[in-house]
Amino acid sequence: MKAQVLHHYDDALTAPSWLRFEDVPDPILTSATDVIVRIGGAGVCRTDLHVIEGVWRPHMDPSGTGLLPLILGHENAGWIEEVGPEVEGLRKGDPVIVHPKVSNGTCLACRRGQDMHGEGRFPGLDSHGGYAEALVTSARNIVALPKTLAPKDVAPYSDAGLTAYRAAKKATRHLLPGEYCVVIGAGGLGHIAIQVLRAMCAAEIIVVDTSDTSLQLAQECGADHLVKADGGEVEAILSLTRGKGAEAVLDFVGERGTTSRGLAMTRNAGSYYVVGYGEDVVVPSVDLVITEKNIIGNLVGTWAELTELMELAHRGLVHLETQEFSLQDADRALHMLHAGKIRGRAVLIP
Amino acid sequence: MKAQVLHHYDDALTAPSWLRFEDVPDPILTSATDVIVRIGGAGVCRTDLHVIEGVWRPHMDPSGTGLLPLILGHENAGWIEEVGPEVEGLRKGDPVIVHPKVSNGTCLACRRGQDMHGEGRFPGLDSHGGYAEALVTSARNIVALPKTLAPKDVAPYSDAGLTAYRAAKKATRHLLPGEYCVVIGAGGLGHIAIQVLRAMCAAEIIVVDTSDTSLQLAQECGADHLVKADGGEVEAILSLTRGKGAEAVLDFVGERGTTSRGLAMTRNAGSYYVVGYGEDVVVPSVDLVITEKNIIGNLVGTWAELTELMELAHRGLVHLETQEFSLQDADRALHMLHAGKIRGRAVLIP
Amino acid sequence: MKAQVLHHYDDALTAPSWLRFEDVPDPILTSATDVIVRIGGAGVCRTDLHVIEGVWRPHMDPSGTGLLPLILGHENAGWIEEVGPEVEGLRKGDPVIVHPKVSNGTCLACRRGQDMHGEGRFPGLDSHGGYAEALVTSARNIVALPKTLAPKDVAPYSDAGLTAYRAAKKATRHLLPGEYCVVIGAGGLGHIAIQVLRAMCAAEIIVVDTSDTSLQLAQECGADHLVKADGGEVEAILSLTRGKGAEAVLDFVGERGTTSRGLAMTRNAGSYYVVGYGEDVVVPSVDLVITEKNIIGNLVGTWAELTELMELAHRGLVHLETQEFSLQDADRALHMLHAGKIRGRAVLIP
Amino acid sequence: MKAQVLHHYDDALTAPSWLRFEDVPDPILTSATDVIVRIGGAGVCRTDLHVIEGVWRPHMDPSGTGLLPLILGHENAGWIEEVGPEVEGLRKGDPVIVHPKVSNGTCLACRRGQDMHGEGRFPGLDSHGGYAEALVTSARNIVALPKTLAPKDVAPYSDAGLTAYRAAKKATRHLLPGEYCVVIGAGGLGHIAIQVLRAMCAAEIIVVDTSDTSLQLAQECGADHLVKADGGEVEAILSLTRGKGAEAVLDFVGERGTTSRGLAMTRNAGSYYVVGYGEDVVVPSVDLVITEKNIIGNLVGTWAELTELMELAHRGLVHLETQEFSLQDADRALHMLHAGKIRGRAVLIP
Repeated sequence: MKAQVLHHYDDALTAPSWLRFEDVPDPILTSATDVIVRIGGAGVCRTDLHVIEGVWRPHMDPSGTGLLPLILGHENAGWIEEVGPEVEGLRKGDPVIVHPKVSNGTCLACRRGQDMHGEGRFPGLDSHGGYAEALVTSARNIVALPKTLAPKDVAPYSDAGLTAYRAAKKATRHLLPGEYCVVIGAGGLGHIAIQVLRAMCAAEIIVVDTSDTSLQLAQECGADHLVKADGGEVEAILSLTRGKGAEAVLDFVGERGTTSRGLAMTRNAGSYYVVGYGEDVVVPSVDLVITEKNIIGNLVGTWAELTELMELAHRGLVHLETQEFSLQDADRALHMLHAGKIRGRAVLIP
Repeated sequence: MKAQVLHHYDDALTAPSWLRFEDVPDPILTSATDVIVRIGGAGVCRTDLHVIEGVWRPHMDPSGTGLLPLILGHENAGWIEEVGPEVEGLRKGDPVIVHPKVSNGTCLACRRGQDMHGEGRFPGLDSHGGYAEALVTSARNIVALPKTLAPKDVAPYSDAGLTAYRAAKKATRHLLPGEYCVVIGAGGLGHIAIQVLRAMCAAEIIVVDTSDTSLQLAQECGADHLVKADGGEVEAILSLTRGKGAEAVLDFVGERGTTSRGLAMTRNAGSYYVVGYGEDVVVPSVDLVITEKNIIGNLVGTWAELTELMELAHRGLVHLETQEFSLQDADRALHMLHAGKIRGRAVLIP
Repeated sequence: MKAQVLHHYDDALTAPSWLRFEDVPDPILTSATDVIVRIGGAGVCRTDLHVIEGVWRPHMDPSGTGLLPLILGHENAGWIEEVGPEVEGLRKGDPVIVHPKVSNGTCLACRRGQDMHGEGRFPGLDSHGGYAEALVTSARNIVALPKTLAPKDVAPYSDAGLTAYRAAKKATRHLLPGEYCVVIGAGGLGHIAIQVLRAMCAAEIIVVDTSDTSLQLAQECGADHLVKADGGEVEAILSLTRGKGAEAVLDFVGERGTTSRGLAMTRNAGSYYVVGYGEDVVVPSVDLVITEKNIIGNLVGTWAELTELMELAHRGLVHLETQEFSLQDADRALHMLHAGKIRGRAVLIP
Repeated sequence: MKAQVLHHYDDALTAPSWLRFEDVPDPILTSATDVIVRIGGAGVCRTDLHVIEGVWRPHMDPSGTGLLPLILGHENAGWIEEVGPEVEGLRKGDPVIVHPKVSNGTCLACRRGQDMHGEGRFPGLDSHGGYAEALVTSARNIVALPKTLAPKDVAPYSDAGLTAYRAAKKATRHLLPGEYCVVIGAGGLGHIAIQVLRAMCAAEIIVVDTSDTSLQLAQECGADHLVKADGGEVEAILSLTRGKGAEAVLDFVGERGTTSRGLAMTRNAGSYYVVGYGEDVVVPSVDLVITEKNIIGNLVGTWAELTELMELAHRGLVHLETQEFSLQDADRALHMLHAGKIRGRAVLIP
């Protein structure tokens, strides 16, 4: 089959081309519960750029044996092509979305439903991913799609959307009417989070972004208040929240000072959720004591949460902005992403 | 001042008149934190009929010393008229709604925020209520209203609305996308609950009622599915929920068989919320074991929950249907309620 | 291999012998993740008597095709004998305990960790169980035992103990210092629950039983107060709890009036947990409204909860009373159980 | 009456004497719900040293009007001396402990039971405290003591103990059997936390301290594992927890590198609780994302939590080490504390 393959890291992300579009062997079933998915769409993610840079090498290849050549792509959706002999309930042609973590299902974390904290692998980062015509994975990773949802339209939900969903869902579990939720960054993840908050709680949603276009998108997604990030955003939030700050702050940026500003926007006894990353979070321990604030880390969601998110998409409660590219054009999509020129999320279609 | 006073119980509710409209002494402040509220609206509730019947005598007057004559009215809103010397933050003319329980604020239940489980009294049931020009209560009971909300339009939220809010809120704390909530009875409480569910979770809402008018109202309030209660409602629910039942069932009727049907509509590991009452709940203990269902009792909400509900009302996320009567016409309103002729909730205006 | 097989139901439980000790085919692996467990101990449970009576036929054989001949035994522990080709982390000779539900691991309930609410089968009730020299099951059901725990000593934890653990654990999640937990019935399940409560919360534990021997055992297990069930137990509980009742009541009897008395012992806003069963739970809906009590159903625990319980056993925080029988003597053990002559739990040893 | 009064700050804590023992006016009732407590014991706390240094001036006196002269002492217990006309349930001579925050009881935080997040004052820091023969406070702050507990023996529970209790209690709400809790620092707060963990959950408790004496105390308090903090403590914790870290880490030190080591000891998806303070918490945002760890701030507990802690003390489940001084010797006690020569907590007795 055809695939986009990474052969060399590029620390500086300056090469004109990063991937090679080439013929590779077709994937094969090795376990009784494996499945092969014919790719309908593969999301292009900033994490792919980090993989190309080599940022993930120490995490994904601690023994240093080398992961290249590697087919990228960790946001995959498509149709069942072939199933192992012990797979039940899935048939060739079924539309599906693929949870990004191939967990084993037997460790305690998996058995408590926390797939992403279990043992396992992460296709596209430590094994072949979905920038290809097909992908082999486990039946454990598969969520069947309703007929209303086309694979190419939902692929980015499998990682980016699922991460936004999990963080926003955590906040909705404690947010009450009369309380506030600040969303920092209304990009690919942030615009999903706003819709999730709108659907699942009645807190007032305040969105902070540097870009007018993003703020416009935030408004369409259901934000109650828009704040331009121009240096005065902390004061703006305090003013909107009667001087107290917000009970929840979801930070989808995590760099250029948003972590300290995000904490400053958080009300005493409230929670600051870290989703975007880049800089260090730095906070005097005495401040955490006096204010009793919480700082909450956020990883991608569980398999069950992916079914919840697909339900929201199916019912039209969340909508994802995508921009389509052919698989052959993967490199162009990645370079556009690097240049900040993708609107919503890019999706590769074989 | 003028007030509507109950002088005699009427077990059968057959008397042509139940209350006497008469002059009574003005209420006075006795504690440093008392307040007097000039009534702007007093909700007329089925519980008032039960008080007239004498149903509440054993609960409210266990010593049998007698509570009559009694001014009814436990759903009150109005304006601050006078405050005790230690009341802070409330001034004459402020619009307010009155939480129905006058709790002491010092017992452990109160200190944990569970006002309605603390010691205290319940004006309109065991002491003079708001079917009058004014009411004396404690500053602890007062929730200030935003300017968007007129006392006469919100009075019934203080008890009926608050009860519906608390039950629905409990369900929203566990309902997830892809799950179902059944609301049995879309009357005065039920139509509030539907709107609360809509605002605070993304479960699909199924409403069951015997009346087409109520189902129509349910639809306007945001129900996803309407089921006419015609004997086949359990099968209808199972059909809508892939044979499994709903994760939450809120029963605002509690009689004529809704309790056994409500439990039958509840999915394994789900929760059946009892709000309306009348009949016995009867369930084989083995069924509770095999299905692991929960049966959840529901009382009126806390003071904090009344502030949450007022926030939803202020933001237009819940709306209450009311029918206005002058205070002088209290008896007519009560008789119409008894005859099932009130649309939404009746409110008395002095 | 040798096994104890049920060939005929006995509605009245009057036959001198119920099972036949005979040669049956050895179990075989059919799935890549199957395992065969050599039985070290199989717990004898009141549910086995109900199976012999035919009580479970409508639940376990709804199509009426017939389940007999059937090898009983749903509380099994032993050593790994053989594993399928895709089983990881288990080797011949490893000591293990077997979770009673063979769930598929793919449905939403399983994926959220709620094994017992997923699809699946229940060996000993609807397929061959562990009254035998060996049992075939799935690797999903297996919990590895630490060296401190011998299979024959822990087998009854897999169902009876796990049920007691789950119910008690639910209560410990809300019980606070200064609160009370009543345990009704200090038998096979109850004496485990008392130890779990002792280990996992600081509520005061009050045990109610009709038998002095059981109350003696309760005291050894860590009960703070003992109440003889002689008709005055509700008053005794109210007296011990300052007239308010207990925040949690765990009922391991569920018959002869314990359900109404258990609810009467429950404090307002508290929870009554149904574990034992037999009679109907009957409660006026108005009482649930006025008191805001909860009635909580309880099934067997999850796989993860079985690991938690084994941890408590390993550390000596819970201890199980057992009485050993050879597998050949299964019928004698069952008849003794029926006659109320087993102390703790009987275990069959091949 | 006699009191110990602070007249001048001492930034460097080098003065031979900090307080003046002098005659001051007796406290008087000003509100209908005020009470005067005759001091039985006043705890001496490191925070008192910080007050003397002037560290709290910006927090407690933002307007800069000056708080001196000030009677220190925020950990108070004693007997009711006089009550305002609307105080119920308290009588002269009743033994009591005083919650450190005088909250107003009317703001939303107070109404939800979160006293320490409400408006109010903090005697001993921003108004006169308990280094005196008597103290005026509100009935809202008073927790009645059982006869088993003498004021001088429990005074330090009101702040130090209550802070330790709240943090440990939070951890017990999620800790399960088979999980681990690390306690960093087994001093005045830490030794209480160990006992609270022991009483309220079944996690294995690992205590880290630099001092053998403290580790000895930790063992007496119920620690399962002791780790000497000698630079290898992170590896020691990882070794004890199968390489994963602990589900909860309670840090009662918060300086000299414990914050980064504490986070390193925390398992993925686990929580690191900040109680002690001094240094900055610094963590790369990407680490919070990959590990999904939580950083939890901790303030003093609620009034309800003080009743819970008193219940544990009454039942002998927690015990506090104290060293008694006469009120006249306050300065000596403070200097000994500053020199690290107090065993447990110092208490001043008028």
